[in-house]
Amino acid sequence: MSPPDSLAAARARIAPAYDAGLFRDSGHAVSDALADHLAESLSGEGPVLNWNAPADNIAAATAALRGEPVGSNDEVADRVRGLVGEILKRGQNLHSPRYIGHQVPASVPIAGLFDAVGSVTNQPMAIYEMGPFASAAEEACVAALGEKLGFDAGSFAGFVTHGGSLANTTCLLTARNVLFKKCWEEGVPRSGPQPVLVAHGESHYCIARSAGLLGLGTRNVIKAELNDRRQIDPSALDETLTRLRAEGVPIVAVAAGACATPIGAFDDLNAVADVCEKHGVWMHVDAAHGGAAAFSPTHKHLLDGVERADSVIWDAHKMLFVPALCAFVFYKNREHRFEAFRQDAPYLFDPSDPGLAEHDSGMKTLECTKRAAALGLWGTWATFGEQLFTDLVDVTFALTRSLYEKLNAAADFEPLNDPQCNIVAFRYVPACLRDANDATLGRFQQDLRRDLVRSGRFYIVPTAKDGVPALRCTVMNPLTTEAHLDELLNELRTRGRALSERR
Amino acid sequence: MSPPDSLAAARARIAPAYDAGLFRDSGHAVSDALADHLAESLSGEGPVLNWNAPADNIAAATAALRGEPVGSNDEVADRVRGLVGEILKRGQNLHSPRYIGHQVPASVPIAGLFDAVGSVTNQPMAIYEMGPFASAAEEACVAALGEKLGFDAGSFAGFVTHGGSLANTTCLLTARNVLFKKCWEEGVPRSGPQPVLVAHGESHYCIARSAGLLGLGTRNVIKAELNDRRQIDPSALDETLTRLRAEGVPIVAVAAGACATPIGAFDDLNAVADVCEKHGVWMHVDAAHGGAAAFSPTHKHLLDGVERADSVIWDAHKMLFVPALCAFVFYKNREHRFEAFRQDAPYLFDPSDPGLAEHDSGMKTLECTKRAAALGLWGTWATFGEQLFTDLVDVTFALTRSLYEKLNAAADFEPLNDPQCNIVAFRYVPACLRDANDATLGRFQQDLRRDLVRSGRFYIVPTAKDGVPALRCTVMNPLTTEAHLDELLNELRTRGRALSERR
Repeated sequence: MSPPDSLAAARARIAPAYDAGLFRDSGHAVSDALADHLAESLSGEGPVLNWNAPADNIAAATAALRGEPVGSNDEVADRVRGLVGEILKRGQNLHSPRYIGHQVPASVPIAGLFDAVGSVTNQPMAIYEMGPFASAAEEACVAALGEKLGFDAGSFAGFVTHGGSLANTTCLLTARNVLFKKCWEEGVPRSGPQPVLVAHGESHYCIARSAGLLGLGTRNVIKAELNDRRQIDPSALDETLTRLRAEGVPIVAVAAGACATPIGAFDDLNAVADVCEKHGVWMHVDAAHGGAAAFSPTHKHLLDGVERADSVIWDAHKMLFVPALCAFVFYKNREHRFEAFRQDAPYLFDPSDPGLAEHDSGMKTLECTKRAAALGLWGTWATFGEQLFTDLVDVTFALTRSLYEKLNAAADFEPLNDPQCNIVAFRYVPACLRDANDATLGRFQQDLRRDLVRSGRFYIVPTAKDGVPALRCTVMNPLTTEAHLDELLNELRTRGRALSERR
Repeated sequence: MSPPDSLAAARARIAPAYDAGLFRDSGHAVSDALADHLAESLSGEGPVLNWNAPADNIAAATAALRGEPVGSNDEVADRVRGLVGEILKRGQNLHSPRYIGHQVPASVPIAGLFDAVGSVTNQPMAIYEMGPFASAAEEACVAALGEKLGFDAGSFAGFVTHGGSLANTTCLLTARNVLFKKCWEEGVPRSGPQPVLVAHGESHYCIARSAGLLGLGTRNVIKAELNDRRQIDPSALDETLTRLRAEGVPIVAVAAGACATPIGAFDDLNAVADVCEKHGVWMHVDAAHGGAAAFSPTHKHLLDGVERADSVIWDAHKMLFVPALCAFVFYKNREHRFEAFRQDAPYLFDPSDPGLAEHDSGMKTLECTKRAAALGLWGTWATFGEQLFTDLVDVTFALTRSLYEKLNAAADFEPLNDPQCNIVAFRYVPACLRDANDATLGRFQQDLRRDLVRSGRFYIVPTAKDGVPALRCTVMNPLTTEAHLDELLNELRTRGRALSERR
């Protein structure tokens, strides 16, 4: 294609895709489709998970790509409505109050609208100029959340990245580079004892994965010993670090949890900080889930000591109830903010205006081009105020305590933890399985869960304790009620009985 | 908080945030605000960049967080509209046809609506169950794009991640783990010559950064020699690999560009593949920008040989004109798809149903929880058909050729490359600067650019050639016309003259 007429024809074909009127019609159509869908989900009507096997969903998605494109402008909003309908009827409905599954929330729907502003206008913000207000909204949230954690205004730094895994990796990369000044340029040290990372014994998989990624090796992650509430045992940690120091083993960091994922165990962060300070070791806290407790006068004690950590992560897309992904990284010491990465890209960072680089997110994040990932949080906060976050934490934590009490009171359920937050693990153990071996008992939990979630009635998740499969709930929807929890237990009983009879 | 009445009060305060009717009103308000904004931007009215210094934007963003929350439900849509207005009036307007800047597009606005469906309903999809149709839409796009690249259906694999940097890092991590079978578990090898990565001499900064991240060290990136069109010189590459092999130096990968960022140089991928095959080295292609040429019968020859690469990345949020972030990773050999990461997370991956793990994106990506990042591409494709992508490539490439010809014909402009795609670098060299030294000439380009972009009249970006600052345009908006390009040159002349007179 080069003749001007074919260029003009191409432009004419492109035009509808950039027609503001067609966008408006489509925007209204999508808003209505989403509002109708939310009304149904939020009320608890309809399924939680719309279960279809992968092959079936992939066939539907592929067929749409191969269909005829819209033939006229009039069809655009209808086509968009049809495709959105397909997405909605085949999706997971976190907004159902019967969603009590992973640590991913029934997000505040309006937060998604603020995300959409960033998405429709595309504010890529690797450098400040390319998303000036998106950058500013992120910086405002960093300041506000960092102060909630107890860091001193002006002396800490932070930014947003695409998820807790990236956030943890970035912090541990910084810890590695701070410990080994030449590592970034020269690679992981090749002499002396191999460096280790000491982590909560049940830390998220991304912690060990970071060791694999950063060239340290996953086997060089030492699992910190846990107490009977599955929190780091500070005296055992002290012994471990003492031994490692005596052996001359470099310690990249101690990674504590606030909270660890399996049962939501919060480490005693002051005790961990004491040990880290004693040995001069970088303290990292994965507060992806629990950071939000900082908003609750009732629960913020769970985070006591977090302000002593060298690095902290906190996912707003967990307990601040915004859509994925919006994860915060914090460094207690501002000077660490450029330690993770160092690069030269003359077309990006303008050396003639170096002050601006302070606000160029690409200098600090794994991403170069970035979404305006903080707009959802910023808009939600600015609309409803921070009391919303307090309430969301308090309600979901309180409801989880109720669930625990119900499980405890029931002869046929066995809770596996006394919840510190909104996570509780348990097993359904009907009379006929009371003497079953671990393999049978575990397999029963897995089969029961699959049967339940594929029915669409509830969504809960699998876990394991001592290697034996179990069930796990995280109350991530503030519309879930006591009645739904009672219904969950009854549903598990009914399905469990049917399942054990089929065996 | 524990008494039931305070729980009830908290629930009552939360209710408006989950009210489907308020969401509907807000959705309409946001659609209208965006449509009005787009109408203005697309027409070329108003500024490109709304320049405000960081401190000013941060103050505005912070004030919004500290404001009074909405007092009544009636205020929700108004508040949302007001906040969205603030975002829009302080943002970067890629949709202006006078945006001719970074390799980030004036995205198809409707793509942002499909993103919004994922965002409002929150489909986190680390595991298939948590975003079944979002996963399927991604798999359908992977299949369709991979076949466009020329990979054999059924024998390749791919997935979406949050940006080209993550995508490149994931591929190079895979290459590292494939080369060093024990590296993931044991860390980077500590004996023998240090491994190297050979990369296009002007590869994106994330390539060298990956070496830093993966524990290889940035100084162990060998810059492949370039020819006068700034493409990898295949015979020099052959000599380099021959020398490295003779010295027993492990070679993690050769990273080629399709295209490299500074001037959009496409490597001769068949020639690079010949050399890599000869030496048995992993061939990686960063086709973040240029992958889209596969949609154009006119330009797809630029990618000849890409199907021989072991790994390829392709950013849909560049030349497929969807909003950030939606980056694709491809492995020629399906068996490499789980090589980057290996983890154990019993609450995520159900060992009782292992076939499902094939569709669990968290097994393959740096992210655990993930956005439904492919919905924007899927929806745009399914609405407008693939001809749209062909047209977008053809129009922007053709227009860049026009810009080059205009620069070439003008006595006071000096183009720095004959563009292969839609990237052209140049300098404005008025008569009074014809004998200026490099420092003066370079500083003038930087000052001129800053003056221009902060005026809001055009948005172009800085680059450098041979260490001397220059200007750079990427035509990323299909609504840009010849007239806008003429206007750009005249605007640079007017501002340039004023600037040189002020000196």
